[in-house]
Formats: sequence, C-alpha cells, structure tokens
Amino acid sequence: MNYRKEYDTMGEVRVPADKFWGPQTERSRNNFKIGPEGSMPYEIIEAFAYLKKAAAYANTDLRVLTSAKRDMISSVCDEILEGKLNDHFPLVIWQTGSGTQSNMNINEVISNKALFDKTGLLGEKSPLHPNDDVNKSQSSNDTFPTAMHIAAYKKVAEHTIPAVEKLRNTLKKKSEVFKSIVKIGRTHLMDATPLTLGQEFSGYVAQLEFALKAIKNTLPHLSELALGGTAVGTGLNTPDGYDLKVAEYIARFTGHPFITARNKFESLAAHDAIVETHGALKQLAVSLFKIAQDVRMLASGPRSGIGEIFIPENEPGSSIMPGKVNPTQNEAITMVCAQVLGNDTTISFAGTQGHYELNVFKPVMAYNFLQSAQLLGDACLSFNSHCAVGIEPNEKRIKELLDQSLMLVTALNPHIGYENAAKIAKTAHKNGTSLKEEAVNLGLMTAEQFDEWVKPEDMVGSMKS
Amino acid sequence: MNYRKEYDTMGEVRVPADKFWGPQTERSRNNFKIGPEGSMPYEIIEAFAYLKKAAAYANTDLRVLTSAKRDMISSVCDEILEGKLNDHFPLVIWQTGSGTQSNMNINEVISNKALFDKTGLLGEKSPLHPNDDVNKSQSSNDTFPTAMHIAAYKKVAEHTIPAVEKLRNTLKKKSEVFKSIVKIGRTHLMDATPLTLGQEFSGYVAQLEFALKAIKNTLPHLSELALGGTAVGTGLNTPDGYDLKVAEYIARFTGHPFITARNKFESLAAHDAIVETHGALKQLAVSLFKIAQDVRMLASGPRSGIGEIFIPENEPGSSIMPGKVNPTQNEAITMVCAQVLGNDTTISFAGTQGHYELNVFKPVMAYNFLQSAQLLGDACLSFNSHCAVGIEPNEKRIKELLDQSLMLVTALNPHIGYENAAKIAKTAHKNGTSLKEEAVNLGLMTAEQFDEWVKPEDMVGSMKS
Amino acid sequence: MNYRKEYDTMGEVRVPADKFWGPQTERSRNNFKIGPEGSMPYEIIEAFAYLKKAAAYANTDLRVLTSAKRDMISSVCDEILEGKLNDHFPLVIWQTGSGTQSNMNINEVISNKALFDKTGLLGEKSPLHPNDDVNKSQSSNDTFPTAMHIAAYKKVAEHTIPAVEKLRNTLKKKSEVFKSIVKIGRTHLMDATPLTLGQEFSGYVAQLEFALKAIKNTLPHLSELALGGTAVGTGLNTPDGYDLKVAEYIARFTGHPFITARNKFESLAAHDAIVETHGALKQLAVSLFKIAQDVRMLASGPRSGIGEIFIPENEPGSSIMPGKVNPTQNEAITMVCAQVLGNDTTISFAGTQGHYELNVFKPVMAYNFLQSAQLLGDACLSFNSHCAVGIEPNEKRIKELLDQSLMLVTALNPHIGYENAAKIAKTAHKNGTSLKEEAVNLGLMTAEQFDEWVKPEDMVGSMKS
Amino acid sequence: MNYRKEYDTMGEVRVPADKFWGPQTERSRNNFKIGPEGSMPYEIIEAFAYLKKAAAYANTDLRVLTSAKRDMISSVCDEILEGKLNDHFPLVIWQTGSGTQSNMNINEVISNKALFDKTGLLGEKSPLHPNDDVNKSQSSNDTFPTAMHIAAYKKVAEHTIPAVEKLRNTLKKKSEVFKSIVKIGRTHLMDATPLTLGQEFSGYVAQLEFALKAIKNTLPHLSELALGGTAVGTGLNTPDGYDLKVAEYIARFTGHPFITARNKFESLAAHDAIVETHGALKQLAVSLFKIAQDVRMLASGPRSGIGEIFIPENEPGSSIMPGKVNPTQNEAITMVCAQVLGNDTTISFAGTQGHYELNVFKPVMAYNFLQSAQLLGDACLSFNSHCAVGIEPNEKRIKELLDQSLMLVTALNPHIGYENAAKIAKTAHKNGTSLKEEAVNLGLMTAEQFDEWVKPEDMVGSMKS
Repeated sequence: MNYRKEYDTMGEVRVPADKFWGPQTERSRNNFKIGPEGSMPYEIIEAFAYLKKAAAYANTDLRVLTSAKRDMISSVCDEILEGKLNDHFPLVIWQTGSGTQSNMNINEVISNKALFDKTGLLGEKSPLHPNDDVNKSQSSNDTFPTAMHIAAYKKVAEHTIPAVEKLRNTLKKKSEVFKSIVKIGRTHLMDATPLTLGQEFSGYVAQLEFALKAIKNTLPHLSELALGGTAVGTGLNTPDGYDLKVAEYIARFTGHPFITARNKFESLAAHDAIVETHGALKQLAVSLFKIAQDVRMLASGPRSGIGEIFIPENEPGSSIMPGKVNPTQNEAITMVCAQVLGNDTTISFAGTQGHYELNVFKPVMAYNFLQSAQLLGDACLSFNSHCAVGIEPNEKRIKELLDQSLMLVTALNPHIGYENAAKIAKTAHKNGTSLKEEAVNLGLMTAEQFDEWVKPEDMVGSMKS
Repeated sequence: MNYRKEYDTMGEVRVPADKFWGPQTERSRNNFKIGPEGSMPYEIIEAFAYLKKAAAYANTDLRVLTSAKRDMISSVCDEILEGKLNDHFPLVIWQTGSGTQSNMNINEVISNKALFDKTGLLGEKSPLHPNDDVNKSQSSNDTFPTAMHIAAYKKVAEHTIPAVEKLRNTLKKKSEVFKSIVKIGRTHLMDATPLTLGQEFSGYVAQLEFALKAIKNTLPHLSELALGGTAVGTGLNTPDGYDLKVAEYIARFTGHPFITARNKFESLAAHDAIVETHGALKQLAVSLFKIAQDVRMLASGPRSGIGEIFIPENEPGSSIMPGKVNPTQNEAITMVCAQVLGNDTTISFAGTQGHYELNVFKPVMAYNFLQSAQLLGDACLSFNSHCAVGIEPNEKRIKELLDQSLMLVTALNPHIGYENAAKIAKTAHKNGTSLKEEAVNLGLMTAEQFDEWVKPEDMVGSMKS
Repeated sequence: MNYRKEYDTMGEVRVPADKFWGPQTERSRNNFKIGPEGSMPYEIIEAFAYLKKAAAYANTDLRVLTSAKRDMISSVCDEILEGKLNDHFPLVIWQTGSGTQSNMNINEVISNKALFDKTGLLGEKSPLHPNDDVNKSQSSNDTFPTAMHIAAYKKVAEHTIPAVEKLRNTLKKKSEVFKSIVKIGRTHLMDATPLTLGQEFSGYVAQLEFALKAIKNTLPHLSELALGGTAVGTGLNTPDGYDLKVAEYIARFTGHPFITARNKFESLAAHDAIVETHGALKQLAVSLFKIAQDVRMLASGPRSGIGEIFIPENEPGSSIMPGKVNPTQNEAITMVCAQVLGNDTTISFAGTQGHYELNVFKPVMAYNFLQSAQLLGDACLSFNSHCAVGIEPNEKRIKELLDQSLMLVTALNPHIGYENAAKIAKTAHKNGTSLKEEAVNLGLMTAEQFDEWVKPEDMVGSMKS
Repeated sequence: MNYRKEYDTMGEVRVPADKFWGPQTERSRNNFKIGPEGSMPYEIIEAFAYLKKAAAYANTDLRVLTSAKRDMISSVCDEILEGKLNDHFPLVIWQTGSGTQSNMNINEVISNKALFDKTGLLGEKSPLHPNDDVNKSQSSNDTFPTAMHIAAYKKVAEHTIPAVEKLRNTLKKKSEVFKSIVKIGRTHLMDATPLTLGQEFSGYVAQLEFALKAIKNTLPHLSELALGGTAVGTGLNTPDGYDLKVAEYIARFTGHPFITARNKFESLAAHDAIVETHGALKQLAVSLFKIAQDVRMLASGPRSGIGEIFIPENEPGSSIMPGKVNPTQNEAITMVCAQVLGNDTTISFAGTQGHYELNVFKPVMAYNFLQSAQLLGDACLSFNSHCAVGIEPNEKRIKELLDQSLMLVTALNPHIGYENAAKIAKTAHKNGTSLKEEAVNLGLMTAEQFDEWVKPEDMVGSMKS
C-alpha cells in the first residue's frame, strides 16, 4: 500500500495515500484494533456531517469564518450525506470514550477533500484547517454528544416510530375484524372465561400505543444539543449566540426540532437523554415480546398445540419433517427484544460512569442505542409484513375449544349458585364430559335451560375491541 | 398453637386461631415457604384496602351491595390503613404470580374482622362473605394490578419525587453559592480548561431536573387502573359504569388522579406501566450515581486525592487509622443505584413474560418497583441531609490546582498561536515548571503579558450556574 | 426511650439503654435511614461471629490475646450463633460500602455483652475493648469480605446445593418412570417428531447436573478468605502466621474448607468470587426457568391447552371460576429466577466499581448474593415437594396427540421417499384428516403397511432417559 | 441482477445467478431484512464447515455416504475455511431462532459449489443433494448448537484466553518490577496505610488469574456437542455410533477436545453451556474494568490528579488543549466491559426461553457470545501493547504523597497509644502540617524518634508482590 506522510503535534504519521483521513485518524486506527474496522455507526458520521455544516453556517453568520470556507465545508458535508465518502471513516467504536478521533476523522476528511477537489493533493491543512476551520467553535466534547443526539433522534423519529405505527395499525385492523369471534380466555396458561379474539388483539394495540407515547415523551430531552459547550461546557472559544444559531441550522438541515441544551455541563458529563429514550425503547421491546410470544403460542400446532390462529407460512421449517412450518418472524423479533434488554443494561451502566466534566462511554452508548432503534424498527416492519398482516382466525378450532370449556360454568352462578356450579364443573372435569351433560345428569337443569343460560357471547362484555 | 377449622372448595384447612386470615391464605402460607414470611410489600396491602373500600362504595352506589355491608368493609379497610392489622398478612412475594391469595388474604381478613367485631367469632363468612361481598365485582386479576398501580403511584408521588426535589434544591443552592469559584475542569479524568464549581454543580441540578421530568412523564400510564376488568379484562360480573366509578373513589380516597384504564386487556396481560415508570427511576439512579461519584472524587484526600470540596464527617472511618473519614453517604446512595439497575433487569424480564390474558409475574414486579422507589427516596433524603447540605469548597486547594494547571495555556492561542502555546505547555510539563515561567523563558511574552492574557475567570463563559 | 451516653473519637453519642451496641453503631443507625432497619442479612452477622471467634483463637495462639479474653469473645459469639442477640444488630445494608459499622456493631456487642455478663453494666469498653481486643489483628476491610465469603459459601453449600439436588433427584426418578411413554415432540412450539416423556425430563436433569457442577466449580474461589489482610491487604498489625491460622479456625468452626486468600489485595479491592459464584447461581436460574416453564406448558388446560401431564392442585385458583387450578409453584419459581437475573446485574455492576485498595459495594453484593442463594434453594424445595413429586402423565391425552400427529410421516421417508411423504402430510393437514387415511387414499400403501411402518416407539432412539 | 430459478417444497424461488446459495437461503434473505445483511457471525459459518466435513467423514465410515460424496463435501468445506466463499453467506442473525436457514445456506452452498466445480452449473441438487447428502444424519436442531459450541470454544481458547494471559504476564512483570516502591494506599478513595505499587498490581494479576481459571472451568461443558441428536434429541435417522464418531472428527479437525454431549435433549432445548462460559467472560469483564479504571485514576493529572504512574501517550487528546493526553486505551477496554455486561443480560434472558425440545434464541446467543469473546481478547491485546507494557511509576510524586500522608500515624500506635496518635493526626489535618511537626510540637516524641518509628517501608508487610 502507498502512504503519504502527515504530521500532528505528536509528529509524523504515515497515512494510506488514497484516503482522505489524516494523522489523528490514522493513529486511532492503529492503536485500536478492537472489533471490526469501520464499526463506528455510520449514522454518527452522517450526524457529524450535519453538525459540521451547521457550525460552518453559524460561524459565518457570526463572522468568525469566511463564506468561502463555509461553502467548502458544506459541500463536503453534502457528499458525506450522499454516502459518497463511506470508505474514509475507518474508526471503531472501541476507541477513546469521547470519540475525539471520530471528530478529527471528519475534520480531516473535510479538510483533505476540499484540498483534493481544488488541487488533487492531500495533507496540506489548507485551504481548510481541520482544527482551526472545520472544528471552529467546537470541541470533540460537544460535537460527539451532539452527533449522538442527532443520530438517535433521527433514527427513532424516522425509522422506529413509523415502523411501530405500521404494526400498531395492522393489529388495530385485526382487532376490529376479529371483534365478534368469541374464544376461550387463558390465565396462568389455564382455561378461563371467554373474550373475543378482537379484545385479545386490542390489548396488543394498547401496548404499542403506550410504547409510542413513552418514546415520544422522551424526545424533547433528546432534542437538546450540546453544541456550543466546547471543552467542558463553558462555551470557551465560541462567539456570542453561537449555540442557539447552530442548533437552528441543525434543526433546519435535518427537519427535526433540535434546540440548544439548557445546561451544557449536563450534556457533556452525562448522557441521560440516551438513557431515557433507550429506556422507552426497552419498554417497546417488552411489549413486542409479549405480543410476538402470544401470537406464536396461539398459532402453535398444527395438531398438538393451541392452533386458534393461522400465521403465514414463509419458509420450509425442517429439512427432515415435511410440512413443518415455524413462527420464524416471531422468533426474529423476540431475539431482537432480548438484544434490546441487554443493550439497556450496557447503556445504563455506561450512563452512570461519567466523571467530572465528561462521560467517556459515548461510542458504546451510541452504538447500542442505534442498534436497538434500528433492529426494533426493522423487526416491526418484518413482523408486520411477513406475519401480522396475514394472521387469520381458525374459527373451527376456536369454537371447538370454547364449546368444551369448563369455565363457561361461571355463567350458571346467578341461576344455581356457586356451589352447584362448582359441582358441575368438577364432575365434568373428572369424567371428561361436557358441562351440559353433567348439568342435566345432576338434575340441576334441562338441556334447554343450559343452552339459554350458557352463552359465551354474553360473557365478553360490551367493551370495544 | 391453637387452630380453628375453615373450609374452601378444596376442603378443610386448619388456620391459627388468633388470626383473621382464612383457608386460602393458609394454603398459600403453607405451600410457599420461599423467603421471609410476610414479605409481600405492605404498600400492596394498603393499596388493597383502598381498592376494597372503593369497590364497596361503587357496588353500593350501583345497587349490588347493601350500604350496611359497604360500611363494614370500609371500616375494616380503615383499620388496615391505620396499620392495626399488620399481623394478619403473612403471605410472601414468591407465591402465585397473579397474587390471587393476597387478594383472598385481604378478603378473608375483612370478612373475619367484621364478624369478629360483631360476634367475637371467626370463620363464618357471614355477615360478609369474602368472595360474594368483599370481592364483589372483582377478580384477583384486576385487583392485584390495581393495587400495584396504587402502591407504585403513591410511593413515587409521595416519597421519591419529593425526596429528589429536596436534593435538587440543595444542589441548586450550592450551585448558586459556588458560582464564582473558578476551578480546573477535568475530562477523561485529566486536567482541562476551567469552569466554576457552581457550573459543575449546575450539571447535577440539570440531571435531577431531567430525571424528575422523565418520572412525571410516566405517571399518566401508572394512573390507569385495571379494576373493572375482572377475570380476563371483559368486566364479566360487574355492573354498568362500575369501572369509572370505582376509579373515582380510589382517586378520592388516595388524593391521586387515578382513572380507569382505557384497555383492561392490556392492564391484566402486561405491566408496561410498571416497566415504564421503573425505567424512569432507573434513569434517576443513573443520574444519582454520577453525582455521588463526582462528589466523593472531588472530596477525596485529605492529602493524596483531589480535595477540592469538603463533605461532612459523620462517622469514624476506621478502627485502626485515626482521623480517617469516608464518603459513606455516597457509598450508600451508589449502592442503591446499583440495586435499582438490577431491579430494572428483573422488571423488564418479568414484563416480557405475560401469556395470553395474564402476566403472572405481578408480585416480583411490585416488590422490585417498590424497593427501588423507597430506596431512591430514602437515599436522596439521607444523602441530602448528611452530605449535600454540608458540602463546602476548599478554596485554597481549588486555587492551588487551578494556578498550576497547564490547560490555561489555551487562553494564549489567540495571542501567540496554537503551536507556540503547545510549546509552552509541553516544556512546562516536561520541566515540572509553570506556564508563566516557560512563557517568559521562551521569550514569547513578558510576565505582565502572561498575567493579562491568562485569566481563568475569563475562560468560564457567561453561562448562569 | 432511655439512653446511655457513650463516646468514640468523634465525641459523645446517646445509645438506647437496653441495647448492646455502642456509639459507632448508633451513628450509622442515625445516619442511614435507608430501607428497613436491621436489613443487613443475618447470615453476615453469623459469619462475623464465626470470624471474631476464630480471630480470638488465632490471636491467643499467637500470644497477642489472653486466653481469658478469647473465652469471653468466644462465649458471646456462641450466643450470637444461637440467635440470642438478634435484636442488637440494627444496621442497614445501605450504609458505608465497606460495612465498617457492621464490623463495629459486632465488636461493640461482644464488648458490651461481656461487660454486662460480668457486671450488669454497659458502655465501659472493659474488660474487652471493641477495637483493641475484639477487632485485634483485623480491619473492617478484611473482616467484611471474609464474612461475605463465609456467609455465601455456607448458604450455597448448606442450602442451595442440597435443594437443587433434591429436585434433580425427583426429576431423575420421573425421567426413569416415564421412560416408555412416547409423546409428540415440539420444536418452535410446533409439532415435531416423537420422543419419550422420560427423555424430555432427562433434559431437565442434565440441566440441573450442569448447574450443580458449575456452582461447585466456583467454590474454591469463594473459600479463600481475606482475613489477615487488614486495612489495605498488607497485613499491617497482624502477628506472623495469623492469616493461615485464622482460616483454619474458621474452617474448623464452620465445617467448610476455608483457606487464607493467596492474594489479599485482590480480596479487598475486588469481589470477583462473589461475581463468579453468583454467575453460576444465575445459570441455575436460567435452567430452572426453562424447566418450570415447560412443566406449566405441558400441564396447561384442562381442556384448551397441552394437557400432557398433571401437576398437583394446591389452591383454588380463582374466586369466580370454579374448578380452576393454576401452576402456582411454577409461577413462584420463575419469579425467583427473574429476581436472580436482576441480582446478577447488580452484583456484576457493583463488582466493577472497586477503586484502588477497596471495593465499597460490599453490603449490596452480599445482600443480593444471599437473597439469590436463599430464594433458589427455597424455591427448589417448594417446587419439588408441591409440584415435581406429584407430576403424573396424562397418558390418554399424550396418546391422542401422538396418534394424530403429522410429523410421524417422517418414518415413511425410507419407504416411499421424501416427496411422497410430504404429499401425504400436506394433504392430511389441508383436509384435517389422518396420515393413514390419506396414505391409503393416495394409493401409496395399504392400511397394514402404514401400521407396520409408522411406529412412534421406533422413532425415539435407544438413548437412556 | 440476473436470477436463476430454484425450487423447494414450497415452490419456485428466484436466486441471484452468481451465488451458490439456494432457495431456502433466498427465502430467509428476503423475509428477514433486519439489521445488516450477512450479519450471522462468520465464526458460525466456519464452525458449520468443520461439522459438515466431520459429518461426511462419520457418515462414510458408517457406510451411509459414499466416499466420493464425502470428498466433494470435504473439499468445499475446506474452501469455506480458507475464506474463499465469504460472499455466499448473506443471512442475518435475526432470522428463525433455530438458525435453520443458516444450516440450509451451508448445505446449499456445498451442493451448488460441488456441482459448479464439476459442470459450471448451479441449482441441480446433484451430484450432492443439500438435504439428503450434505445434511445427512443431521438436523438444523443439532447442527446449529454444535456450530455454536465449536465457534465459542475456538474463540475463547484461541483468542480470549491467550490475550488475557498476555496482559496477565505484563502486569505480573510490572508487579515484580514495582515491588519495592512504597506508596500510599487508598480505601473509600481516601488516604490509607501504605502498600507497594507492586502489591497493588499483584491484585490485578490475581483477578486475571481467577478469571482465567473461571473461564477454563466452563470449557468442558462447552466441549459437549449436540450433533447426533437430530430433530428433537433422539438421534432419529442417524446410524449407530454416529454421535461419538462425528465428535471425534470435529475434535481432530479443530484440534480441540470436543466430545459428544451426554444428553442431547439438553443440548437442543437449552444453551446453558453458552450461559455458563459467558458468565465467566462477564467475570473477566468485571475484573478488567477494575484494573483499567484504577490505572487511569492512578495516571490522572498531569497536575491536578493522582499522577502516581505514567501511561503511554498515544494520540493528541484534544483539538483545543495543547499537550492534553488521555487514557484512551482504558476508555476502550472499559467500554468493552460495559458491552459484555449487557451481552450477559441478553444471553441469560435468551437462555431462559427454551420451550419443550428447542431453544429458539440460538443466533442471538451466538452473536452476543462471539462479540464478547472477540472484544475482550482484542481489548486485552490493545490495552496490553498500547498501555500496560508502558506503565511507569512517577516515583517523585509517589514519594511526595507518601511523605505527607496522615495515615502513617498508624505506626505510632504501639509507641504512644491510639489516643495520642489520633491527636497528632487530627492536629496535623487541622493545621495542614506534617505528622512529624505536630508530633514534636505536642511533645510526644523527638524528631529522631519519629523518623525511627514511622517507616512506611515497614508497614507494607512481607507479602510477595
């Protein structure tokens, strides 16, 4: 491989000749061979592109950067956002906990790309200096948390929430379509009084509604940006009004309601906003696990399970058992939920470990957050289109199970009393017979009376599904 | 011990003669010798007293219970709330996951106590039947989650939040008092540019503000009550309008804005509200850990640590080292935070495990939630009064560290450029000298110029502490 | 309440007149009102009694304590071990993270009780001085971790392991009794090829065997005791040979193979032994969850579930549904497992947080460890006697499900090929008919041939159950 | 893109023309767009290559596969192991929880590659049928857990353990080199009695020794392979002796002591071996966190921290603060530890969720395990070479802190008593003076006596560092 020589305050560094990154990126690349190269989430790179562009605009407006430099910075940022420079961000998650070299990576790429576009050369720190120009009015300590918030907010707002809403809508529709299908209820996994299949699904819809509300409740915290705090939160070396202006530009460029953080010390030293929103994503995972688990149990069989619903058959389920089809979408989404619970442990732990003016667990927090938000969104979309939309009731099976249920006996309480009702149920259970048979055998009622009194459809209440 | 004989649908049970509980409580007591007897949180018992009383009132209003029975129920509930019957609730957390026998425990105690007050006898199920009267229009499946929400809401609103606010107020006052004390900043645990001690503390205040907001955001979900859903959420065996009315009575009796749950199926089958609020408590734990950790590090010493602040000396710290005093309050509160993080794992896991119409991890969720809310509140109060209120700056030490800091060199950048500034800092670091000495030695400025240019108080920005 | 005045190096303290504890205990009691009074696990107090007695013996052997003092100390320790002084240990878990005041609590109680026995007085520090005599050759920093290891080892060895072995033995017996009961297998919750009920249970036995082995693997680490390290691990102020001797006495008094830690610095600054053994307890929780979950799913019904086994009916399951019986033991044990997973999060987190020469999360680690070990043991015993021993197969149901299974078609592969077998299965699935019907209808074999070729009992292998 | 048509039992599938995978892989690829394509860990693919080759050998030995087919299978497996077919494994982690389609992916690639090598064609299932030949005597249900164990064992044995040993060796050497450097101890972050820097490091060595032992203790469980259990653990469709033989071949091909699992039901339905070994990796993470945290605290400064050691300066630490160097390796490794703690939550949770004959959280467990084992190994190597080997004492600073320590007063106890010693310490603390000054001022000893009695080097014990 060919190299060029670059320099930083520590001396000479050999950098691959065909890359736009510079010496500080290269140092980090060599010093941190932990996990796969380039594993810093690309959403963070993109978020940096937004904020570098916004900083350039704010700096120019406040007369500390020429408009020519602003335009050069802005132009490279746009290229990054178009995905044209993906090969130039080689750094890993497991580097310095402030993400300093990832900030320098983007500074160096912007500087070198601007030079390259003008001259075909690399490594000159002119016309754009990576620190003095690209990083002007910034520090790694305020840019990295800003990038975390931008990336996290965008992912949740643009991917996770719409995906959950899509699944919620499908389940809501199912709940309406199934609203008159009376089925046996189950508590403690044991037979209980009836409800409608629509009511059962309405519980899932409610869970997702609550999860969506919980996620949205956290977004204002996430919308607060550290930028303007620089090294320790004091805003050293920023022009007056910079923090407000740069947040406005970020809001404009991304289309999301970002604002400057009320307290920059908190924004650097803690990442409670990440903890908070991920807490809500974890709640979503809890909800989705319950839903997907229920659906696969209801669909279990085909002969020796519950079998009250059909789910789509997507892949041959076994290489030796013909006709076997498995609830694979449910498996994928419940695995995602397990992942999110673990990610929450990591994020919470990392969140406790800020010291003084800086929390240096930034990359690991960003990585886990973005993974959760991405996977939850992906899994909702996949589960929705390959499973939920295709759920159909097995009405024959539902009726069969309902009819033989012993818990319908509850409807007899008002007519013959709890004790007599219990006698019927226990006798039927012991003999493996039906309630009706034993009710008549025991001389407690006629068959006609039984039919009149035991109507499952009257036991499901008037609640809207 | 003396016993009396009681009966339930499974047959005879011998119950301790001097206890108000009945056969179902006794069965559970015998079948679940797991952990300490009586470990079901007493807050759950109290919450049951509120809801049993509210149910009696609602039932009477809706003409399914006589006012005489209502008054008997109400009277025993009041005794429970006064703490007079604490010895009659022997059940453990680790029982059935629906808490059915805890519901029956209170039904039996109310029934027996009413009988006892009238006749001095026990075990007759008259004048109040535990099921037909005390449990009227109810099921364990809707009462237990209702009790969970009542207990959780009360604990958070009446204990945790006020305690956090108290600590927040103390830290806010400190932040104001300390607003002009300029000190060295630290990032990566390494010396950085200065800030004021007030600014540092303002970050802690902001963390607690965000945590309070996050907790409050979750309370509406927690305020929704399952009562009225009965066995599977359909409201079987409840009179019309009962769910709304019973929630109103609970709101009235507790003084908190409880409402009936919009979807009762969700309320029984999932406990996402508990997951949601505990997620916010976990965020609070994350914040408190950072704060308490910082305070003990800032106070470390007395000779070989950081030593920038003094904290109260509360106990002799060592049996062999005279004069040793330790940051014990910080240790207690950080241990509480570690506990809350674990409790969150338990609650999230348990939250995923609902099946069909019921989640049967209710007691473990209630236990962990209430422990977290109690401990966080207690720890905030303890940390506040035994540590935070007594925090004082060690101004001599703060000045000493600030004056010798190499990071003040940053202020020279505009005057002599980054390269020259770096040269000064590196030389001073190497020689163990001061910036001023080397700045003058290197011929880059006069001593007077140094004093004019390097003013830490000008480096801390204009931000309000 | 009456008080007496006592003194420590910080001055006067008013102590309840009827208690044996002294000023340092009282300070801690007043300064830490976090969680319930007296919540420090009593196993820790007992472990302290063992170690104080052992230290007295070692000190006397090594001629730094008179035998008269040794005997006084020993005598009070024995009373503590007999549970006679339980009211004199009021301290909470949430105190200093070194447990210093709990060490002082026992020092003070021993000192005062010895005085009281002799004179009826309290508070004189004579004839036994709490520090100079009772605490001789010790520091909180080495006694508390020693107490943790003693308490943890004893609990696991004396309670958890025997309880797991009991359950393992029951399941092993079931596995043997059920070894010829052929039943349908289920993978992905879906019908699969058959196995025997005994084979299914043999998997549970194997899980518990592995868990037991994993736990036992960790015990050597737990058997290493910090005692002899004193303040920072150097053994300052201990006589030569003391650490070996005191460990021998502890081994003798407890009957467990305790030894002195090879590296005392590790023993004070980290608690990886607690992390290690609790990791194995967590593995046990994982195993038990699977087992208890399977058992309740297999027992689900009675009409609309799987219903392949019967479990004991222990309590009426519902106040409104007669005849309902629930898998309550399974619910209790799975809740315990959820708790243990959370406790593991707490313990791991706390384990990371040692600083320099001391980890100050000792009480929270001890508390979570002992809770897990106790609950797992209790839950195994309860599940064993109230559920596992009573498990019986529902052979009628097992046969019914087996006979109608479509997965038996796999046995036809060698005779008619995979493609034809698939055709039979899919047709039967579509028509809701039996394999035999469709095999004959499709003209692929005679009914006799089907009966000869499809023998589930030949499909379960020759493996020992 | 060009496609070819392939068929499975569900019908036609269009497969990219230039890929060796087949219809089942393609179905999964289309149905699971969750997370990045190809995210199934490549170690799992490699492990499959080992096991497919071993199965072919065992099948041929047992006369159910021709040696010609064996050689074709073996040849493609070798290519996979050489990394030549990496582009042909597109599947994701978040697929079916049994990993069935990943098993089929390798079956299809082997089949197609063998055909391609012979004819240049694809998609014919001849000369090697993916199911009948490549998958002979196997099921996804036993191959995937076998691949998990192979991959996990290899990664831990070949990467994690050697990396930890390397770091352990470095720290051990440091501990020896530093064995005579007496320094102040710190407990509760507060000054305590002295120890040597070597002793301090010996604690780290001991932690890693225990972690290595803990990991090795778990390997026997991990060495047990499910292969031979096929669909549900019964070994249906395997020739006699197959399970033993195939394990022998895997042991031979990998060079690790793999054996066949004693109980195949456990091997499919639970993954407690993964839980067990990952529990030990988590313990390692706990240890590493403590070590890396201590090192960065000891190195903190350069002027306003502890500063007792120097660590290598690897990257410029700040874009605005010249001369700032940060403990970046410590940050990377502690972030890795935080990740591993979260991964443990995921793995434990997933481990609980087996149902009946299969746990369908296999891919997520494999993914988290392999990530932890890789990152821990990588981080140890990185921390070792870029930090640990370069640790040097700052002897000047160490002496300065030691000399001014108040805790040396403990050495005076035997000479002037605890009370007088305390008086000296408290006076010196109050006046900001030295012990010696106040000892003499108070008339308790001469300066010569002080120097004779207070020798820190006599306070550090005789323990080997």
